[in-house]
Amino acid sequence: MTPLVYSQDANPSDAVSRRLEEVLAAGRTRFQEYLFFRSRTNGVTIVLDGDVQSCEADEAIYHEALVHPAMLLSEEPRTVLVMGGGEGATAREVLRHPSVERVVMVDIDREFVDLCRRFIPEWGRSAFADPRLEVRYEDIFDYLARTPDSFDVAIGDLVDAPDPVSPAAELYSRSFYERLAPRIREGGILATQAGALRVGDDPDRRTARAGLAARFASVATYGIVVPSFYHLWGFVVASNRALELAPGALFERFEREAGRRGLGLPATGARALAAAFYPPAAVRAGE
Amino acid sequence: MTPLVYSQDANPSDAVSRRLEEVLAAGRTRFQEYLFFRSRTNGVTIVLDGDVQSCEADEAIYHEALVHPAMLLSEEPRTVLVMGGGEGATAREVLRHPSVERVVMVDIDREFVDLCRRFIPEWGRSAFADPRLEVRYEDIFDYLARTPDSFDVAIGDLVDAPDPVSPAAELYSRSFYERLAPRIREGGILATQAGALRVGDDPDRRTARAGLAARFASVATYGIVVPSFYHLWGFVVASNRALELAPGALFERFEREAGRRGLGLPATGARALAAAFYPPAAVRAGE
Amino acid sequence: MTPLVYSQDANPSDAVSRRLEEVLAAGRTRFQEYLFFRSRTNGVTIVLDGDVQSCEADEAIYHEALVHPAMLLSEEPRTVLVMGGGEGATAREVLRHPSVERVVMVDIDREFVDLCRRFIPEWGRSAFADPRLEVRYEDIFDYLARTPDSFDVAIGDLVDAPDPVSPAAELYSRSFYERLAPRIREGGILATQAGALRVGDDPDRRTARAGLAARFASVATYGIVVPSFYHLWGFVVASNRALELAPGALFERFEREAGRRGLGLPATGARALAAAFYPPAAVRAGE
Amino acid sequence: MTPLVYSQDANPSDAVSRRLEEVLAAGRTRFQEYLFFRSRTNGVTIVLDGDVQSCEADEAIYHEALVHPAMLLSEEPRTVLVMGGGEGATAREVLRHPSVERVVMVDIDREFVDLCRRFIPEWGRSAFADPRLEVRYEDIFDYLARTPDSFDVAIGDLVDAPDPVSPAAELYSRSFYERLAPRIREGGILATQAGALRVGDDPDRRTARAGLAARFASVATYGIVVPSFYHLWGFVVASNRALELAPGALFERFEREAGRRGLGLPATGARALAAAFYPPAAVRAGE
Repeated sequence: MTPLVYSQDANPSDAVSRRLEEVLAAGRTRFQEYLFFRSRTNGVTIVLDGDVQSCEADEAIYHEALVHPAMLLSEEPRTVLVMGGGEGATAREVLRHPSVERVVMVDIDREFVDLCRRFIPEWGRSAFADPRLEVRYEDIFDYLARTPDSFDVAIGDLVDAPDPVSPAAELYSRSFYERLAPRIREGGILATQAGALRVGDDPDRRTARAGLAARFASVATYGIVVPSFYHLWGFVVASNRALELAPGALFERFEREAGRRGLGLPATGARALAAAFYPPAAVRAGE
Repeated sequence: MTPLVYSQDANPSDAVSRRLEEVLAAGRTRFQEYLFFRSRTNGVTIVLDGDVQSCEADEAIYHEALVHPAMLLSEEPRTVLVMGGGEGATAREVLRHPSVERVVMVDIDREFVDLCRRFIPEWGRSAFADPRLEVRYEDIFDYLARTPDSFDVAIGDLVDAPDPVSPAAELYSRSFYERLAPRIREGGILATQAGALRVGDDPDRRTARAGLAARFASVATYGIVVPSFYHLWGFVVASNRALELAPGALFERFEREAGRRGLGLPATGARALAAAFYPPAAVRAGE
Repeated sequence: MTPLVYSQDANPSDAVSRRLEEVLAAGRTRFQEYLFFRSRTNGVTIVLDGDVQSCEADEAIYHEALVHPAMLLSEEPRTVLVMGGGEGATAREVLRHPSVERVVMVDIDREFVDLCRRFIPEWGRSAFADPRLEVRYEDIFDYLARTPDSFDVAIGDLVDAPDPVSPAAELYSRSFYERLAPRIREGGILATQAGALRVGDDPDRRTARAGLAARFASVATYGIVVPSFYHLWGFVVASNRALELAPGALFERFEREAGRRGLGLPATGARALAAAFYPPAAVRAGE
Repeated sequence: MTPLVYSQDANPSDAVSRRLEEVLAAGRTRFQEYLFFRSRTNGVTIVLDGDVQSCEADEAIYHEALVHPAMLLSEEPRTVLVMGGGEGATAREVLRHPSVERVVMVDIDREFVDLCRRFIPEWGRSAFADPRLEVRYEDIFDYLARTPDSFDVAIGDLVDAPDPVSPAAELYSRSFYERLAPRIREGGILATQAGALRVGDDPDRRTARAGLAARFASVATYGIVVPSFYHLWGFVVASNRALELAPGALFERFEREAGRRGLGLPATGARALAAAFYPPAAVRAGE
């Protein structure tokens, strides 16, 4: 084991530190600083600009939770936009849905995608080999401004841009969602990761959610534990139509559709994905 | 702020460190080493023998999750045994159920209870003032061996003894549950905290659960995020009778009963307590 | 061992962390925040306002190095002023010199002195029992402004005030040394601790030294390793007369005088005290 | 700055952690694990098998202190053996002595030497370009067993082997010094780094020194602060002849010879190198 420790503040008081078994790669692409390391407990760990993105040990929890609620809320998703998602794991989960005909993944950072294909080849292997996937290396803002396409589902796995909890979230997300909204089909679904759910009021989250609420008829936050993140991790789904999110209906739909579509959901399960929509009130209060 | 940091291993690779605003008390009772400190993010934090027990910021999530599922699964709980629970918060939650007539709290460590009443008086104030509460300062093993009483619900908030995930859990819990089982009434419910739910196989948890399964007709693990613990926190409920834990029935029961009993559940909510029974498969796999 | 760690930045990149065996006392006097703890390696450790003051394991190195060079450079020191020095160890070393007739120790913080007498009674026991010692609990500025006394030797063991390397050092020390200088007898000696000696330019140290140089005919920095400080620790001696600091003369003087006065110097030795005047050029360069 | 921290235990209680600006290289050669990183305070830092070897900020203090005392104690050193020293800085200092005709540097790890020439080219540039230097990539044990050569001065900058304070030191050094002693000329000098000088008894150091004392007529420990090591760093010189180490003679010799040989000694100075032979008694006691 190396004597290196990766340390990240969890909040103004506390920090999580991780001992590295091995540094796999450390450097900087044109767009971001990266670090790939191996941890005894969490396996290969990917850090971008100082934030853990995913760990081998539970990336499947994260990516199943990011992708499948939106997909299961969509009747027969055929076209899907993945914003970010360089590891390939987001596209991998999207492509499990048999109705999917086309996935466009837009990630600005080709060098990072290449690093992922070298150091975590299994994560995205099935996706990158799938002819339904089209990978575009460009700025998502530019892509949204220019593309004539529209999508049944759009999934945001972006590091910074439309993260509803980042400091500059309000302005950013306003212009971002203005561009994104027209690219989502009538009745389509947007899902995006939303940072850690914490106790207490969270003005950034509140503002960002207000921005989403102004654009979409339904907005809901859900949260699932990703153990290697040491937090309940938040996600947001939004839609132009009213989403039916009462427990009875949601459990029934997720279990039925996951079965019909033949999704294994080995890391989460249909019930865990439905249960994620009912986090404790004290962390929901931050909205 | 002091330059002191409280650091605890989360697993063989990672550690969580917490910066102390102020040391409130540090020492050793006859039974355990204690530390009370104030953290900017989590408020007053209580540590026993090197493990965080509760933090002011979210103790209500922990104690609501420990107490209410068992109470809500019990029809009209009248007598309740609290094993441990020196902060008074477990008894406080129990006493919110209007059917409760008598609560016996057995905690071996009077000095620790006194420290809690001094440094976190609000946590247990309503409980310690409630005539339905009887506090006994003795070893829970001795108490169980001698008492002729039996209970509708028994709740374990013990630091070490019957924690199903401690190394010596198997033998310990075997003899512990042998003593405890006869003190739970026909159809009664046991609930106990069960440590962090992690990814991967967990032989201790598997063994401990097997021990419980041998004694009780129904055993179920549930998990709720307690943000200041930096993990999904596990609990076990067990009963002599079959528990109905399908989502439809469980959400319906918890919402109905919480309403009927006038429980506020400000930190969690009836839905969050029901949802807790469906953790992600990857962390459930440790059973 | 507790799970507490005391952590202190050594410089903008690095930090030293110390695991606590036991917290002996933590709190705040009228003047400063204190922490007394026990470390396995360094024994009882005293922290004031976040800075380690002394550790049982090597306080004798620190206090011998603070006191004896000035005392050995003084012919027959009879009256000595100790500024600060609440632990009693500075006075203890001063009183080893048989010519000393009177020591005035001025420490603003009576509560801290009492804590030292409770938790580290051996450090200052011989001093506090010595009729030649007069302890005054008052602000050193006020004392210097009012006292008609003058001293052969003045020794500064102050936490903040005239520390020549503190940010506000220049102005502070100017007015401080203006008050102090008249209280040192013709040919008398001043010694004060001066913080860690580091590689590279140190503008604060340079400025403070300039302030001393303007007031005193001779100023010299010396440094000795105090292992528990994890740095070469700096001290300054200054005098109204020219000090003879060439190695031949200095070693000869310190060895001869330490012998004549019957000083044991068990932690340092006369040669180590002389050698301290010749630190590596790279750390001397900060002056 | 990266979120990586390099952390190393200083003793059973305390640790030093260093924040990395940039990882320059991390990996494993055939012989050892290496890490080159940049720190804001200490510049490029080289770690082998988890131990800091040298930092750009003060490598000159370390290498001047390792090399020059032995060289200055030798009358007209012509042939010098450098054992280890892959950075090239040890040879660089040796070659400053104008009498030197031949330096043999034996380092087992060619890949590490290549890394040093890539990441810290200035450290050894003058040495590697000097025709008097012969670099051999082989095991020092094998080299000593086979070579017919003998040397005026031998300097050990080895990571593990004959470090007198490593756990296996006694046996190791016995066989090592058996091979080394015949390769040092009559009246020649050996110098080697000896790890941190600490307070208290140090059985390993005592044993290792006894091993040296059995082979050599004179053995002396000296110590100099290397700020980036956070300890007083120990070195040993040994010789077949009696060394004159009284302060008067030693200061005089070092100042005279450094002047005659035109040594700049910018990081230490002749006086600091002489003063290093008189460390505080409390750290000397470990011998």
